[in-house]
Amino acid sequence: MLSTSGQVIRCKAAVAWEAGKPLVIEEVEVAPPQKMEVRMKILYTSLCRTDIHFWEAKSQNPVFPRIFGHEAGGIVESVGEGVTELAPGDHVLPVFTGECKLCAHCKSQESNMCDLLRINTDRGVMIHDGKSRFSINGKPIYHFVGTSTFSEYTVVHEGCAAKINPLAPLDKVCVLSCGISTGFGATVNVAKPTKGSTVAVFGLGAVGLAAAEGARVSGASRIIGVDMNSNRFDQAKKFGVTEFVNPKDYNKPVQEVIAEMTGGGVDRSIECTGNIDVMISAFECVHDGWGVAVLVGVPHKDAVFKTHPMNFLNERTLKGTFFGNYKPRSDIPSVVEKYMNKELELEKFITHQVPFSEINKAFEYMLKGESIRCIISMEE
Amino acid sequence: MLSTSGQVIRCKAAVAWEAGKPLVIEEVEVAPPQKMEVRMKILYTSLCRTDIHFWEAKSQNPVFPRIFGHEAGGIVESVGEGVTELAPGDHVLPVFTGECKLCAHCKSQESNMCDLLRINTDRGVMIHDGKSRFSINGKPIYHFVGTSTFSEYTVVHEGCAAKINPLAPLDKVCVLSCGISTGFGATVNVAKPTKGSTVAVFGLGAVGLAAAEGARVSGASRIIGVDMNSNRFDQAKKFGVTEFVNPKDYNKPVQEVIAEMTGGGVDRSIECTGNIDVMISAFECVHDGWGVAVLVGVPHKDAVFKTHPMNFLNERTLKGTFFGNYKPRSDIPSVVEKYMNKELELEKFITHQVPFSEINKAFEYMLKGESIRCIISMEE
Repeated sequence: MLSTSGQVIRCKAAVAWEAGKPLVIEEVEVAPPQKMEVRMKILYTSLCRTDIHFWEAKSQNPVFPRIFGHEAGGIVESVGEGVTELAPGDHVLPVFTGECKLCAHCKSQESNMCDLLRINTDRGVMIHDGKSRFSINGKPIYHFVGTSTFSEYTVVHEGCAAKINPLAPLDKVCVLSCGISTGFGATVNVAKPTKGSTVAVFGLGAVGLAAAEGARVSGASRIIGVDMNSNRFDQAKKFGVTEFVNPKDYNKPVQEVIAEMTGGGVDRSIECTGNIDVMISAFECVHDGWGVAVLVGVPHKDAVFKTHPMNFLNERTLKGTFFGNYKPRSDIPSVVEKYMNKELELEKFITHQVPFSEINKAFEYMLKGESIRCIISMEE
Repeated sequence: MLSTSGQVIRCKAAVAWEAGKPLVIEEVEVAPPQKMEVRMKILYTSLCRTDIHFWEAKSQNPVFPRIFGHEAGGIVESVGEGVTELAPGDHVLPVFTGECKLCAHCKSQESNMCDLLRINTDRGVMIHDGKSRFSINGKPIYHFVGTSTFSEYTVVHEGCAAKINPLAPLDKVCVLSCGISTGFGATVNVAKPTKGSTVAVFGLGAVGLAAAEGARVSGASRIIGVDMNSNRFDQAKKFGVTEFVNPKDYNKPVQEVIAEMTGGGVDRSIECTGNIDVMISAFECVHDGWGVAVLVGVPHKDAVFKTHPMNFLNERTLKGTFFGNYKPRSDIPSVVEKYMNKELELEKFITHQVPFSEINKAFEYMLKGESIRCIISMEE
């Protein structure tokens, strides 16, 4: 390790040169970490749908050339000035949002929306100097959400790296960097179903399945999965889903279907699609008096949430969450421990595995709807 | 007491013969309590704006002739078959909503929306037999929300009477039957501000002032009162309000004004007007990451709550409450104790007092906006 500290590292990275075009494995130069930054060697990374959204850039700001990737496990190679909580050799999960530990949000026990390091999908550079640490022949290649894990080495802010148990297998726990923690945390940290309660999960992709896993771990007695794709139902059973509703099978609103199934509504619901109509259904399907609905899926920028205010007055609660309300550095290590203690199962989320040279296959699996998570091994 | 048990009682009641017309003190007959009912002698009653709404019946179903009144303190005169928790001589506060102790809501620790006895403003009769206990010359006079306290004697369901400390002065604690508990509970049971936090209260009528009192008792460091009537601001200081905002004084949305005053938003807000635009402001003025808004005011039946869903995703919470989330029988006695322990101040809510014969003056004081609460003494 010592030999590379302070030096530029030349390594392989999967570069997205243009929106929607296959990534190209290139040799890139990775500059040393600057103030409050760490450089890490990525061992495993996984593909999340958010990578796809920004790679397609259909309704997002196109920032290219760029190195995507934000779910990963790695080992710290070197640290920049001022870094006190990480050292070379530490096992880490990079996270797309951060925790500076100094702002009002970081000091609040409730929030994880750090003022300094909150996710910024438009920024392609490091906040210290507004520059990229990646280059090819001196031309910058942009970062993605401060992580850019589709590279053998990457540089992240110290506040965006969770130091975890070095015994944890990085090819499994890397999926906790984003989607799985987001869904699991939405249930266990925000919806907080009690033992024996009834939970509805809207959208049975990776995040929704992780939300169901959270309900299973919490001891929910009924977990109702809602999805427009009935093919997802069999798989969802592994995540604790006990009943399925495909809204296409009914000619009335799904909130009415669920109210009838449950004697007035579910105790908790978790919305993982980002579709505004589904958000409204997820809220209106919770029981009056005590029901809590949690929004996880990210909506369209012009979406408007509409409901009759009596739905609130009748003692329903609506909350939203970001990254499952986990603080990246303070909380993610304990989620890794939940996996180590066999409380949380991760293997069932991992449906595919490819070597780094075949990273574009991971995109294909997800676009076809075949994968939940595809692990990309950096060492072939 | 024994002499009247099982007998019809003739007494005075203030009868509303027509919508919006002054009440008339009449001699009425009050039938004995039937199964699960109690008859009580009312000593003090107070006027709440809800009485006025249904007396005016501008957008409510007109039910006349009717005996209004739902905030009161009394003493049980006799009990009907099956009543086990109340006996003659018990001091009670009748409540417009009930607690059967048997339904899913009553069994839930979180809900007070009893399936059997939840408020029903259209019903003018008792649920046992669908009949009124009040009559004049054999013609029924209708009940109001199961309480009808503008009468020397009234009959209520056992589930709608809270048995309280007999040492509590009924001319003070009678205001806990409705509005004051509603506002106070919205803050202490639902919004739950922590010591040192910042709270906004929208609408500085009795309920809003009680919400502010809840924030004061909780140790909030800043309590921002919002009202379109600046005359209310001086009075509000007694209830802990530290700053005032009249939305008319600004040419931008009040949620922006409050965000600027507080570095991003308040920790908690409580909406006590029922106006849909105010509800939206009350939600959008809470801080991202941890803010909680609570809706108390009852909206118009056609109102639609609209907001951008990112306001939720950024970790804001919106809840509604009914009667401050208090269970009438289980919880109201402890609110009376808070008054007895001088934790909660009630005297400052009581601005006027009239004898029963002058009950129409109480309506005038409230319609002119002069009173918070006017106590009506049944014994002159």
